[in-house]
Amino acid sequence: MSTLKTLNNADLEFFQSIVSRERFSTGESELDLHAHDESGHPSQRPSVVLWPLSTQEVSKIVTYANEHKIPITPYAAGTSLEGNPIPVRGGIALDMRKMDQILEVHPQDLQVMVQPGLDFKTLNDKLKKHGLFFPPDPGATATIGGMVANNAKGIRAIKYGSTGDQVLSLEVVLPNGQIIKCGTRAMRTSSGYDLVRLFVGSEGTLGVITEVTLRLTGLPREFMAVVACFDSVEQATQTVVQMVQAGLTPAALEFIDTEIIQLVNRFKKMTMREAPTLFIEFQGSSRVALEDEINFVKELCHGNGCKSFAAGVGREERDRLWEARYSVHESIKTAYPGQHGYVVDVAVPISAYPEIVRFANEAIASRKLVGPAFGHAGEGNLHAEILYVSPREQALAKEANNAIVHKALDLGGTATGEHGVGIGKREFMQREHGASLELMRQIKNLFDPNGIMNPGKKI
Amino acid sequence: MSTLKTLNNADLEFFQSIVSRERFSTGESELDLHAHDESGHPSQRPSVVLWPLSTQEVSKIVTYANEHKIPITPYAAGTSLEGNPIPVRGGIALDMRKMDQILEVHPQDLQVMVQPGLDFKTLNDKLKKHGLFFPPDPGATATIGGMVANNAKGIRAIKYGSTGDQVLSLEVVLPNGQIIKCGTRAMRTSSGYDLVRLFVGSEGTLGVITEVTLRLTGLPREFMAVVACFDSVEQATQTVVQMVQAGLTPAALEFIDTEIIQLVNRFKKMTMREAPTLFIEFQGSSRVALEDEINFVKELCHGNGCKSFAAGVGREERDRLWEARYSVHESIKTAYPGQHGYVVDVAVPISAYPEIVRFANEAIASRKLVGPAFGHAGEGNLHAEILYVSPREQALAKEANNAIVHKALDLGGTATGEHGVGIGKREFMQREHGASLELMRQIKNLFDPNGIMNPGKKI
Repeated sequence: MSTLKTLNNADLEFFQSIVSRERFSTGESELDLHAHDESGHPSQRPSVVLWPLSTQEVSKIVTYANEHKIPITPYAAGTSLEGNPIPVRGGIALDMRKMDQILEVHPQDLQVMVQPGLDFKTLNDKLKKHGLFFPPDPGATATIGGMVANNAKGIRAIKYGSTGDQVLSLEVVLPNGQIIKCGTRAMRTSSGYDLVRLFVGSEGTLGVITEVTLRLTGLPREFMAVVACFDSVEQATQTVVQMVQAGLTPAALEFIDTEIIQLVNRFKKMTMREAPTLFIEFQGSSRVALEDEINFVKELCHGNGCKSFAAGVGREERDRLWEARYSVHESIKTAYPGQHGYVVDVAVPISAYPEIVRFANEAIASRKLVGPAFGHAGEGNLHAEILYVSPREQALAKEANNAIVHKALDLGGTATGEHGVGIGKREFMQREHGASLELMRQIKNLFDPNGIMNPGKKI
Repeated sequence: MSTLKTLNNADLEFFQSIVSRERFSTGESELDLHAHDESGHPSQRPSVVLWPLSTQEVSKIVTYANEHKIPITPYAAGTSLEGNPIPVRGGIALDMRKMDQILEVHPQDLQVMVQPGLDFKTLNDKLKKHGLFFPPDPGATATIGGMVANNAKGIRAIKYGSTGDQVLSLEVVLPNGQIIKCGTRAMRTSSGYDLVRLFVGSEGTLGVITEVTLRLTGLPREFMAVVACFDSVEQATQTVVQMVQAGLTPAALEFIDTEIIQLVNRFKKMTMREAPTLFIEFQGSSRVALEDEINFVKELCHGNGCKSFAAGVGREERDRLWEARYSVHESIKTAYPGQHGYVVDVAVPISAYPEIVRFANEAIASRKLVGPAFGHAGEGNLHAEILYVSPREQALAKEANNAIVHKALDLGGTATGEHGVGIGKREFMQREHGASLELMRQIKNLFDPNGIMNPGKKI
C-alpha cells in the first residue's frame, strides 16, 4: 500500500486522452466536491476527477492505474455516512454519475439492467409505467452503484430485503482492468461461487461496478400506515419485538425517540405527541389483509400501553402520517445549526433491541452529549446523531459510539447495520470478524494485489 | 491436484486416534455407502469414512489431510443429484451426520444454531413447539450442512428464498484446519466481505461447515392449495408467468406434465385429470387475504383455458391436494423399474419458462427418450427425469440434457437452478461464467492451495 504513487503530468495526459477534456477535471472546486461524503470524516482531495462514459473507458483507466499503482476511489452521489468514498490516498476520484442509463427493461421478468450512476429515484420514476419498482430506499438520493457497493438497506428492507437481495447479476471491472460478468437473469442459481454477493457491499475495494441487473417488485396496490406513541422507549421497542415475533410483515417499522419528535414539531410546525413513536407501514395487494394486520398491530400497541394510535389507509394518508419520519435529518440539522452529527449505525438480534436503545441513550447522556435516536427497528438497526462542535465533544461522541458498537457486538450484533465500514468502522473489524478478517484481507489481496481500489477502507 | 496422495497405514492410524475406533471405518459396506449420491454418476469409494463429533476433530483431520495432501469429501445424507459428494479422488469421506445437535434456540429472535449433520425435517419437528420453522424443503431428507453447501431450494423458495437466504452465520473449518466464524446474529450487516455467501453453495470445496445459524419463520396460520389442469403445457406455463408478473406470492408454484400425472394415477390409484397441471400453495396469517389471492389465481387460470380447478382450505386439504406432487419421483421409479434417471435442472427468467419447457420436451422426444418433466415453475426452474438403460440411451440422455442447458444459457438462465455443479455441470461453467470462472479458480486456490477439499467438483 505504501508504494501507491501520486500522479504526474504524463498520467494526467493519459487519463485526459481516455475520457476527453470535458470529463476530466483537476479544478479546485471539483476536487473539493469529491473530497468528502456526508460523514464527519476529514476531507481529502483526489488529484483528478474522471467521469467515464463506458465500461471500456473504466477498464482503460483502471488498467493504467494498476500498472502505475495509482489509487482509484469510485465516487457517485456522495451520500454515504462512513467516509466510504473519501479518496484518503488521493489519486483518481472515478465519478460514475455519467454512466446513468437504463440499458434494458424486462417488465415480463420483473427485471431491469442499469448503469451504476443512475439514482434509484429516477429509476423508480421510469419504472412506474411498467407497474414496477426497486424497493430499497436509503433515504438520500443514492445511485444504484453506490447502493450495491454499500449494500444499502433503509426503511423497506424489512419486507423487501437489502439492495444485495435484488441484484441478479453484475458487470465489474477488476483492479487489473479485466471486465467480468457474474450472476444470471434466472431467479435462482447454484452455479459457481457467489461472486455477486462478494462484490455487493465491498465498497469499491474489489473492483468497479459498471452494470447491474436488478430484480423488481410489482407496485403495491394498497398502502396503510400507523403512527403509535408510547410512554417509554421500553414500551415502544417491546412492541417492535412482539411485531417481529408475531410474524407480521410490515413494509417499514421505524422507531423515533421523543427528542426527534420535539424537533420535528418545531421544524414542521406539527403537533405530534412528544413521546417515543413507531412509524409503521404495510403494503400489499389486499386491503382486507392489511386491515387484518393493522388490527393485530393495534392490539399489540395497546397491550404495551400505547397512548396514541393513528392509522391511515391509502398512499396519501400514508405520506401524511409519515411526513415526520422524512423530516428527521433536516429537523436535527435545523435545530442545531453549525453542529456536526456523529452517526451511529449498529444492528442487533431483535430481542436485544430494547437493550441497545437503552444503552445508547445512556452512553450518550452520560457524556453530556445530545444524540437523538431513531432506527429501522424492525431490523434491529439503531441510528443516533450525536451532535458536537468542539474537538472535545467530538472525542466524546466517538467514545460513546465506540461503547455502543462494542455493546452491539456483545449482544451478537454487528458494527454496521447498513452504512458500511468505510473509514469509521475499520477499528471494529478485528473484534467482529476475528480470524475471518485475515481471510478477507487475502481475498482483497487476491483481487487487488497493488491495493489501488479505494485504499484505506473496509478492512 | 495430481499430487493428491492415497492413504497409508500411518494415516489411517492417525485418523483413528482422532475419532476413535467406533467412528472410523474402512469396511467395504461403509465405503460403498459413501461411494455415491442419488445421481447416476459413477460410484467411487473413499479410502476411509470418518464420523467426527466436534469442530475440533474436524480441524485435526483437515489439518493432517492438508499437510499430507489427502483428499477430503464432506458427506451427509447423500441425497444430492449431481454427484456433489462422490469422493472421485478417494481419500476421506467425512461423514457429518453425527454432528447433528441443535446448539442454541433463540425463539425470541426467530433463530436457531445447529450442527451441520442435523436433517431439516428433524429440525422442523423440534421447532414446532416454538411456533417456528425453517422453510426450505428440497424434497429428500437432506441435512442442514448439505443444504447450505448446495444452497438447496425446493418448492418453498418462491416465497421464503433459498437455504442461503436463511443463513445468518457459519462456523467453517478452512482447508488449512483453521476454524473461522463468519456472519452475525443481526438480521442485517454491512460489515466486511460476505464470506457467508461465499461458503453457501460452495459444495464443500472451500472448507467444512461445522455450525450454522439460521433465521426462522413463524409457522403460517393458514394454508390454501390449488390444483389446476390445462389442455396444453403452453397454457399451464403461461399461467405461471402471469401469476409471477401479477405479484402474487404463492408459497409454492409447481408444474407437472401429463405423463407424470398418468404415472401418479397408476401408482397411487388416483383419478386426476391427465393433463399439464399446476400445484399451487398459499400460506399466510389471514384467511381473507389468501382467499383474495386464490380468487385472482382462479381468474388467471380460467383466462388461460383451465379445464379443472380444485381449491382447498386448511393444512389437511392442502396435503390431500398435494399428494400427487410428493409422489412424482416414486411414481416414475415404479413405472420404469431398473431404469436410471438423468435429472435435468436448469433455470431461466420467468418469461422464458414456456419456451424452455417446450424445448426440453422436444429435445427429449426427438431422441426417442422418455423424460417426464416437472419443476419449481414459479422460480423458472425446470426438472425432467430422462430415463435410460443402455449406454446408448445414456449418451442420448446426456446429449438431450446438454442441449437443454445450452438453451437455458441462451435464454439468460443458468446451468443449475438448485442441484449445484457437482460433477455433471462442470462442463458448462466456462460458458456460463466466462472470465469469472478464472476468478473462481483463484478463490478456490486461495482457500485450498493443495486442492484437498472435494476435488474434481464445482469448478
